[in-house]
Amino acid sequence: MAVVKSSLSDADLKVVGEALQGALVDLVDLSLVAKQVHWNVVGPRFRSIHLQLDEVVTTARTHSDVMAERASAIGVNPDGRAATVASGSAIGEVPTGWIQDQDAVRIMVDALVAVIQRMRERVAATDEPDPVTQDMLIGLTGELEKHAWMFQAENV
Amino acid sequence: MAVVKSSLSDADLKVVGEALQGALVDLVDLSLVAKQVHWNVVGPRFRSIHLQLDEVVTTARTHSDVMAERASAIGVNPDGRAATVASGSAIGEVPTGWIQDQDAVRIMVDALVAVIQRMRERVAATDEPDPVTQDMLIGLTGELEKHAWMFQAENV
Amino acid sequence: MAVVKSSLSDADLKVVGEALQGALVDLVDLSLVAKQVHWNVVGPRFRSIHLQLDEVVTTARTHSDVMAERASAIGVNPDGRAATVASGSAIGEVPTGWIQDQDAVRIMVDALVAVIQRMRERVAATDEPDPVTQDMLIGLTGELEKHAWMFQAENV
Amino acid sequence: MAVVKSSLSDADLKVVGEALQGALVDLVDLSLVAKQVHWNVVGPRFRSIHLQLDEVVTTARTHSDVMAERASAIGVNPDGRAATVASGSAIGEVPTGWIQDQDAVRIMVDALVAVIQRMRERVAATDEPDPVTQDMLIGLTGELEKHAWMFQAENV
Amino acid sequence: MAVVKSSLSDADLKVVGEALQGALVDLVDLSLVAKQVHWNVVGPRFRSIHLQLDEVVTTARTHSDVMAERASAIGVNPDGRAATVASGSAIGEVPTGWIQDQDAVRIMVDALVAVIQRMRERVAATDEPDPVTQDMLIGLTGELEKHAWMFQAENV
Amino acid sequence: MAVVKSSLSDADLKVVGEALQGALVDLVDLSLVAKQVHWNVVGPRFRSIHLQLDEVVTTARTHSDVMAERASAIGVNPDGRAATVASGSAIGEVPTGWIQDQDAVRIMVDALVAVIQRMRERVAATDEPDPVTQDMLIGLTGELEKHAWMFQAENV
Amino acid sequence: MAVVKSSLSDADLKVVGEALQGALVDLVDLSLVAKQVHWNVVGPRFRSIHLQLDEVVTTARTHSDVMAERASAIGVNPDGRAATVASGSAIGEVPTGWIQDQDAVRIMVDALVAVIQRMRERVAATDEPDPVTQDMLIGLTGELEKHAWMFQAENV
Amino acid sequence: MAVVKSSLSDADLKVVGEALQGALVDLVDLSLVAKQVHWNVVGPRFRSIHLQLDEVVTTARTHSDVMAERASAIGVNPDGRAATVASGSAIGEVPTGWIQDQDAVRIMVDALVAVIQRMRERVAATDEPDPVTQDMLIGLTGELEKHAWMFQAENV
Amino acid sequence: MAVVKSSLSDADLKVVGEALQGALVDLVDLSLVAKQVHWNVVGPRFRSIHLQLDEVVTTARTHSDVMAERASAIGVNPDGRAATVASGSAIGEVPTGWIQDQDAVRIMVDALVAVIQRMRERVAATDEPDPVTQDMLIGLTGELEKHAWMFQAENV
Amino acid sequence: MAVVKSSLSDADLKVVGEALQGALVDLVDLSLVAKQVHWNVVGPRFRSIHLQLDEVVTTARTHSDVMAERASAIGVNPDGRAATVASGSAIGEVPTGWIQDQDAVRIMVDALVAVIQRMRERVAATDEPDPVTQDMLIGLTGELEKHAWMFQAENV
Amino acid sequence: MAVVKSSLSDADLKVVGEALQGALVDLVDLSLVAKQVHWNVVGPRFRSIHLQLDEVVTTARTHSDVMAERASAIGVNPDGRAATVASGSAIGEVPTGWIQDQDAVRIMVDALVAVIQRMRERVAATDEPDPVTQDMLIGLTGELEKHAWMFQAENV
Amino acid sequence: MAVVKSSLSDADLKVVGEALQGALVDLVDLSLVAKQVHWNVVGPRFRSIHLQLDEVVTTARTHSDVMAERASAIGVNPDGRAATVASGSAIGEVPTGWIQDQDAVRIMVDALVAVIQRMRERVAATDEPDPVTQDMLIGLTGELEKHAWMFQAENV
Repeated sequence: MAVVKSSLSDADLKVVGEALQGALVDLVDLSLVAKQVHWNVVGPRFRSIHLQLDEVVTTARTHSDVMAERASAIGVNPDGRAATVASGSAIGEVPTGWIQDQDAVRIMVDALVAVIQRMRERVAATDEPDPVTQDMLIGLTGELEKHAWMFQAENV
Repeated sequence: MAVVKSSLSDADLKVVGEALQGALVDLVDLSLVAKQVHWNVVGPRFRSIHLQLDEVVTTARTHSDVMAERASAIGVNPDGRAATVASGSAIGEVPTGWIQDQDAVRIMVDALVAVIQRMRERVAATDEPDPVTQDMLIGLTGELEKHAWMFQAENV
Repeated sequence: MAVVKSSLSDADLKVVGEALQGALVDLVDLSLVAKQVHWNVVGPRFRSIHLQLDEVVTTARTHSDVMAERASAIGVNPDGRAATVASGSAIGEVPTGWIQDQDAVRIMVDALVAVIQRMRERVAATDEPDPVTQDMLIGLTGELEKHAWMFQAENV
Repeated sequence: MAVVKSSLSDADLKVVGEALQGALVDLVDLSLVAKQVHWNVVGPRFRSIHLQLDEVVTTARTHSDVMAERASAIGVNPDGRAATVASGSAIGEVPTGWIQDQDAVRIMVDALVAVIQRMRERVAATDEPDPVTQDMLIGLTGELEKHAWMFQAENV
Repeated sequence: MAVVKSSLSDADLKVVGEALQGALVDLVDLSLVAKQVHWNVVGPRFRSIHLQLDEVVTTARTHSDVMAERASAIGVNPDGRAATVASGSAIGEVPTGWIQDQDAVRIMVDALVAVIQRMRERVAATDEPDPVTQDMLIGLTGELEKHAWMFQAENV
Repeated sequence: MAVVKSSLSDADLKVVGEALQGALVDLVDLSLVAKQVHWNVVGPRFRSIHLQLDEVVTTARTHSDVMAERASAIGVNPDGRAATVASGSAIGEVPTGWIQDQDAVRIMVDALVAVIQRMRERVAATDEPDPVTQDMLIGLTGELEKHAWMFQAENV
Repeated sequence: MAVVKSSLSDADLKVVGEALQGALVDLVDLSLVAKQVHWNVVGPRFRSIHLQLDEVVTTARTHSDVMAERASAIGVNPDGRAATVASGSAIGEVPTGWIQDQDAVRIMVDALVAVIQRMRERVAATDEPDPVTQDMLIGLTGELEKHAWMFQAENV
Repeated sequence: MAVVKSSLSDADLKVVGEALQGALVDLVDLSLVAKQVHWNVVGPRFRSIHLQLDEVVTTARTHSDVMAERASAIGVNPDGRAATVASGSAIGEVPTGWIQDQDAVRIMVDALVAVIQRMRERVAATDEPDPVTQDMLIGLTGELEKHAWMFQAENV
Repeated sequence: MAVVKSSLSDADLKVVGEALQGALVDLVDLSLVAKQVHWNVVGPRFRSIHLQLDEVVTTARTHSDVMAERASAIGVNPDGRAATVASGSAIGEVPTGWIQDQDAVRIMVDALVAVIQRMRERVAATDEPDPVTQDMLIGLTGELEKHAWMFQAENV
Repeated sequence: MAVVKSSLSDADLKVVGEALQGALVDLVDLSLVAKQVHWNVVGPRFRSIHLQLDEVVTTARTHSDVMAERASAIGVNPDGRAATVASGSAIGEVPTGWIQDQDAVRIMVDALVAVIQRMRERVAATDEPDPVTQDMLIGLTGELEKHAWMFQAENV
Repeated sequence: MAVVKSSLSDADLKVVGEALQGALVDLVDLSLVAKQVHWNVVGPRFRSIHLQLDEVVTTARTHSDVMAERASAIGVNPDGRAATVASGSAIGEVPTGWIQDQDAVRIMVDALVAVIQRMRERVAATDEPDPVTQDMLIGLTGELEKHAWMFQAENV
Repeated sequence: MAVVKSSLSDADLKVVGEALQGALVDLVDLSLVAKQVHWNVVGPRFRSIHLQLDEVVTTARTHSDVMAERASAIGVNPDGRAATVASGSAIGEVPTGWIQDQDAVRIMVDALVAVIQRMRERVAATDEPDPVTQDMLIGLTGELEKHAWMFQAENV
C-alpha cells in the first residue's frame, strides 16, 4: 500500500528512512532508561537528578514523535514497538534495583554519549539526501549534547 | 540496600509489588502501542484516530509514572525497561506497516480489553493488602474503560 | 445492538446501571433546580446565594457527565432527557416566581439532602459489583455534602 | 412582589417575556438533547460527533443563562424546571438507546431547525418592544444557524 | 481642523454625536459614583456590595471608552473632563461619609435607573442615523439593566 | 447539491448572499493590502505603522471568516480565491516597492474608506432580509471605522 | 458613625487624611485628563501617545484606589466624586477639541509635574505621622516621575 | 447548636469525627514543622531541601483544609488552633537553630513516618462508618508516602 | 554555628531579630485563627466571611514566610513551631465550636487590632537599626490595616 | 530608494530574492485555497477536514510572513497582493461551490505536492547564496510535508 | 541638553545620581558574573547552583533597569556600558575556566557581600535627598541579602 | 580539568570554540549597548525606539546564553565577563549622555551591521566542523538581520 508519494529518490529514501528509524529506536529507549533511573535513583542528590531526568524524558519523547512522523511524512513506516526498541537501541543494559546517585549520573552520561555518536553519523548521512530530515537531527543533537554536558559537569 | 521502611507486611508487599510492576509494564506497552498506531494509521478516519490515540498515550504515560513511583514509595523497585516491557505485556503483537483505520480501532479495543482485565484482577488483589494502591488502580481502570468504550463505539 | 463488551456480570451490570441512571437523573435535576433558584432569588443575600448556586451547577453538570459516560462505558444507555428527569428526580417541586433568600437556602438544603441520601444508598449498592463506579459515587457524594454543609451553615 | 421596575410598558413586557421564556425552554432542552446524543452516539464518526455536540451544549447553556437573566432583568420570572422544559420544548422526542452516527446528525439537524424557526419568530416579535432583547436573540440565532449548517454539511 | 471624514450626514452626525457625548458623561460619572460607594459603604453586607460595585465600575469604564472612541471615529470630539461630568451627569448627588449598606443599594438603583432611561432614549434616537452607534448603545443598555436588576433584587 | 435548508426566502437569500460575498472579497483584500504595506513601509514611523497594520490584518481575517461561514450557514457558497479577490475588491491598486510612512497612512485611509462605504450599503440592504447577517455587518463596520479614525488621526 | 478604630492620634489623622484626600483627587483627575487626551490626540505620533496615555490611566486608577482605601482603613472618608475632583485638582484646564501630538505631550508634562510636586509635599508631611501611608505615596511618586520623564524625553 | 443534619449514626460520627480531628492536627503540625526546617536548614543540599519542603507544606495545607471542611460537613467542629496542635500532634519536638541538611532529612522522615502510621489507622477505622471520609484519607496517605519515599531516598 | 555574616551590629541585630520573631509568631497564629473561624463560622453571612477569611490566611502565610526568611537572611533563627506560637501570640484565645457570623467578625477585628498594634511598635523599633526590615513591616502593616477596616465596616 | 544594506552579493541577492518572492506567493495562495475548502467542504468527514484545514492556514500565514519579512531584511521588496498571487501561484484552480469531502482531500494533496516541489527547488537554490534563508525554507518544507502526509493518509 | 526638569536640588541630585550610577554598575556586573559562573560551574551540585544563579541574574537585571530608569527620571544619564562596568564594579575578578561547585558558592558569597555593603551605604546616603530612590534601594538590598543568605547556607 | 568528552576533533574544536566565544562577546555587548540607548534616547520617537530596543535586548540575552552553553557543551569555557566584553566586542564606542532619536537609530544600525558581518563569517567557518553550532548561528543571524532591517527602515 503506497500511501505517501515521496519527493525523495528510492536511494535517498533508504538512507533517510534508516536514519529516522534508528533515531526513533534510540530516543524511545532513552525515554525508558531515563524513567527507569528517575524511579530508582537514591542518594543525597536524589531530588536534583530525579527532576533532571524528567527533562531528558521530555526531550526524548518530543523528538521520538518528530522522527516517527517525519518517517511517515516521507513514506517510511516507523517502528517504535517495545521489542524493536529492546533489540535495536544504542544504549547498553541498565541495572535493576536502587541506583546510587553517582551511578545514575554515569549511566546517563554513557547512554547520552552512545546516542549522540549515532545521531552525528545520521546528521552526516542525511546531508545530501534530505536537508529537511538533517535539520531535525541537528536540532535534536544539540539538545542531547546539552543534556550530556550537564550530567558530565556533575561527575567532576 | 533497604531504602524505604515499608508500612506493609512482607506478604502484603509481595502482592502489592507484583500488582504495581504488572500495571507498570502494561501501561508502558500501551503507550508504545498507541504511538505505533498513531504514526501508522491510514484511511478516511486517519485524523480522528490519530488524535484520539494521543489521549490514550497521555493516560498511559501519566499512570505508568504513578504506578512506578507508588512501587518505590512502598519499597519495591519498578522495572520499566524495554526488554521487560517486551516480554511481560498483556498486549499481543502489533503489526508493522500502514494500518487501515478500522484495523487500528480493533487493535486498540483488543489492547485495552486485555489490559483492563488484568487491572481488574489487580484491583481485587490489592483490596486487603493496601487500599492506597487499590485506589490508584481503581482510578486508572475507570480511565481505561472510558477509552475502551470510545473505541468500541466507533466499531459499530 | 451490543456496543460495549462489559467486564461485569449481568447481575452486577443491572445494579450498577440502575445506580448510574438514578444518579444521572438526580444530578441533571439538581443543575436545573440550582439554575432556577439562581435566576429567581431575591433579598439582601441575593448576590452571595446567586454566586454560590453556580458552584452547585458546576458540580452537578460535571458529575452528571461522569455518571452518564460511566454508564456508556459499562454498556448501559444513559437517559438524561427532560421528561425522564422530570418524572424520576429525588428533588421535590420548586416554586415559580421570585424566591426570598432564606427560602432559597432552605430549598437547596432540602434538594441536596434528598439527593445525598440516594447517593449514599448507591455507594452501598455498588461496593461489591463495581468498585470503579463506587469510587466515582464516593467522590461525588463528598462534594454534595460539602455544598449541603454550606447552605445549612447559612440557615443558622 | 414587584422586584424590578421595568422600563417596558405592560404590553411590551408581555411580548418580550414570552419570547424569553420560550427561548429559555428551547435552549435548556437543546442542551439536554445534545448531551443525550453525546452519550449514546455510536458508529465510525463517534468521536467527531461526540466532540461537536459538546459545542452545541456550550452554546445552549451559555445562552439559556443569558435569556433567563434577561427575563429577570426586565422583571419577568424565568422558568427552566425539568417539567416545564419537558412540556414546552420545540424539539421532538429523542429515542433512547444507542444512536447510529448518521441518525445522530439527523436528530441534531431536526432539533436545530425547529429551534431556529421559533427564534426567528422571536427576533421579529421583539423588534419594536425591546431592541436589547432582540439583539441577544439575533446573536443567539446566528450561533444556532452555524451549528445547523455544520450538521447539515455532514449529512451530504 | 477636520480630522475624520465622516460617513454620516451633518444632521445625523449632530444626533449621534449628542447621544455619544451624553452617554460618555453618564458612564464616567457612574464609574466615579460606584467607586465612591465602594470605598464608603459599611454594614453587614459591606463585602458583597464592595465587590459588586467594582463590576459596575468595570462596565462603566469599558463602555465610556467605547463611546468616546466611537465619537472620535465619526469625527466628534468627546469630552470626559471632570467639570463636564460634574455638570452634565444624569446621576444625582451622592452623599459624603460612610454609607449604610441598604442606602448604598438604593443609591445604585437610583443611579442605574436614571442612566438607563437616558440610554434607552439614545437607542431610539440613533436608530435611523447610525445603526453602528445604536448597536453599541444596545449592548451597553443590556449590561446596565442586568446591574440594575441585581441591586433591585437585593432590596427586597 | 442543496446542502443547507435556508430559512430565508429566495429573494432575501439573493440580497444577503451578495452582501456577504462582497464583504468577504473586500476583507480578504484588506488583509492582503495591509500585509503588503506592513512589509514594505519605511520611514521614521515604520515601527508604529508596522504594528498598527497587523491589527487591521487581525480584524480583516477574523471577519472574513465570519462572513464566509455566515454565507455557508444560509446556504450560499463563499468564494475567497485570489482571482476573485483580485477582480472584485473595493480597494484600488497598491504600489510595489518601499512605501514611505505618510504614503502608507494615506493608502490605508483610502482603502478603509472605500471598504466602509460598501459595508454601510450592505448594512442597509440586509436590514429587512436578515437581521442576523446585518448584525454581523454592523459590528464589523464599527471596527473598520475605528481603524479608519486612527489612520486619519495620524495624517493631521 | 465611628466605623474604624484608628491607631493614629487625632492630630496625625488630620495630616494623613488630608494627604490621602488630596492624592485621591489629583489621581482621579489625572486619569480623566489622560483619557481626554487619549481620545482627542491627533498627529503623526497619534498611536504612540494614544497607547502611552493608557499606561498613565492605569497608574492613576490603581493608585487612586489605593489612596481611597487607605483613607477608609484609617477611618477617614475618601471623596472622589466628579464635583470634588473638578474643584480640587492640581491639574489646570485641558482644552476641548482635537489636540495636536506635541501639545498632548506638553499637556501631560504639565499635569504630571503639577501632581508630582504636591505628592512630594505629601511624602514629607506624612513621614512622622504614618510611615504606612508615606510608603504608599513614595511608591506612587516614583511611578509618576517615570511617566514624567518619558513625556519630557519626547519633547526634546 | 445543631447546624448540620448528619447522615451518619451517632456511633459512626464519633469514630469519623475523631479520625478527622486527629488528621487535622497532624497535618497542621506537619506544615509548621516543614516550614521550620525550610527556614533553618543549612548545608550543601540547602537549596534542594528548602524547595522540597515547600511541597510538603503544600500537601499539608491543602489536606488540612480538606479534613477540617469534611468535619464541618458531617457536623463535627474542627479544632486547628495552635495550642491544640502543640499538644496533640504525632510529630516529636523539632530543635531550634540551624539544622544541618542530613539532620533535616532525618527529621522529615521521622515526622512523615509518624503521621503516616496514624493515617493508616484512620483509613482502617473509617472503612465501615464513612467511605467518603475514608477515600479522602486514602488519597492523602498516598501523597504522604510519596514524600516519605523521597526523603528516605536522599538518606542512602 | 555562624552561618550568615550579618551586616548589622550586635545591638541592632538583637532589636531586629526580636521584631522579626515576634512578627512571625503573630502571623502564624493569625493564619491558624483565621482558618479556625473559616471552618466554624455559621449564620446568614457564612459564605461571605468564609471567603474573606481565606484572604487573611493568604496575607498571613505570605508575610510569615517573608519575616522568617528575613530573620535567616540577617543570621537570626526563626521559630514558628506550634508550641512557640501557642505561647507567644498577640491574639487571645478563640472559642471552639460553631461561631455565629457577627461573633466571627468581632473575633477577627480583635485579632487584627492586637496584631497591628504590635506591628506598629516593630515598625518604630526597626527604623534606625535596619530600614530593610522596617520596609517589610510597613508593607505588612498596611495590608493588615486594610483587613481590619473591612471587618470593622461589616460590624456597623 | 536603497533602504537595506544587504550583506549578499548582487548575484546571490537575485537568486534568494526570487526564491522568497516565489515562496510568498505560493503560501498566500495556499492560505486562500485552504480557507476556500474550509468553508465549502461537505460530507460525513466535514468537521474533521474543516478543522484540519485551519491548521494548514496557520502554517501558511505564519510562514508567508516569515518569507516576506526575510525579503525585506535582505533588501528585496515582497509582493503579496491578490493579483500577484492569482497569476503566480503553483496551485491550480480550485472549483467553486460545495466540495465533497474526498474531493477536498484530493485538492489539498495536489496543492501541497505542487508547493512542496517548488519549495525543494528553492532549498537547493539558496544553499550557497544564503544559509539563513535556506534554513527558513527547510523548516517550512518540513511542515508542509507533514500536512501532505496527513491528507494522503486520509485518502487510502 | 536639559531633558528632565528635576524636582531635586543640585546638591541632592549629585548624591542621588552617584548612588544610582554606582548601583547600576554593580548590578550589571553582578548579572555578568552570575552568568559566568552559571556557565562554568562543575561538580555534584552543578544543577542546583546552575539554576540558583539564574535567579540572581533575574534580580540583577530587573533592578539594574530600575536603577537606570530612575536615574533618567531625575535627569541623570545612566552609564551601563561594558567598559564602565569593567572598571567600576564592586566585585573582584572572577577566574576563567571550570569552577568547582564549592568555589562557585564562595565566589557568589563574596560578590553579593561586596555589593550589599555598597548598597547599604547608598541607602543611608539617599535617605534625606530622595526617599523615592531610597525606597528602591531598600527593596533591592532586601533581595540581595536573601540571595546572600542562601549561598552562605550552602557553605556550611 | 577535562569535564566534557567532546565529539569534535581538536582542530574542529578550536574553530568552533572561537566562533562561539566571539559570538558570546558580541551578543553580551549588544545587550549592554541596546540597554544604554534604551535609557538615554530622547526625541519625538522616544517611546517607539525605547520599546524596540528591549526586543534587541531579548534577542541578545537569549542567544548569548545559547552560545555560552553550546561552548560548555562541547567542552570549551565561555568567557562573558565585563572586561572581556569591553575589549573584544565588534561594536564601537557608544557616547554617554542623552542620545537624540535619529542618532539612536544610526547607532543601532552600525552596531547590528558590525555584529552581523562577524556572525556570517562564523556561519561559514563552522559549516564543516560542527553543523550543530552552525545551525544555532544561522538562526541567530536571521534574527539580527530582521532587527537591522527594522532600524534601517526607520532611517529613510
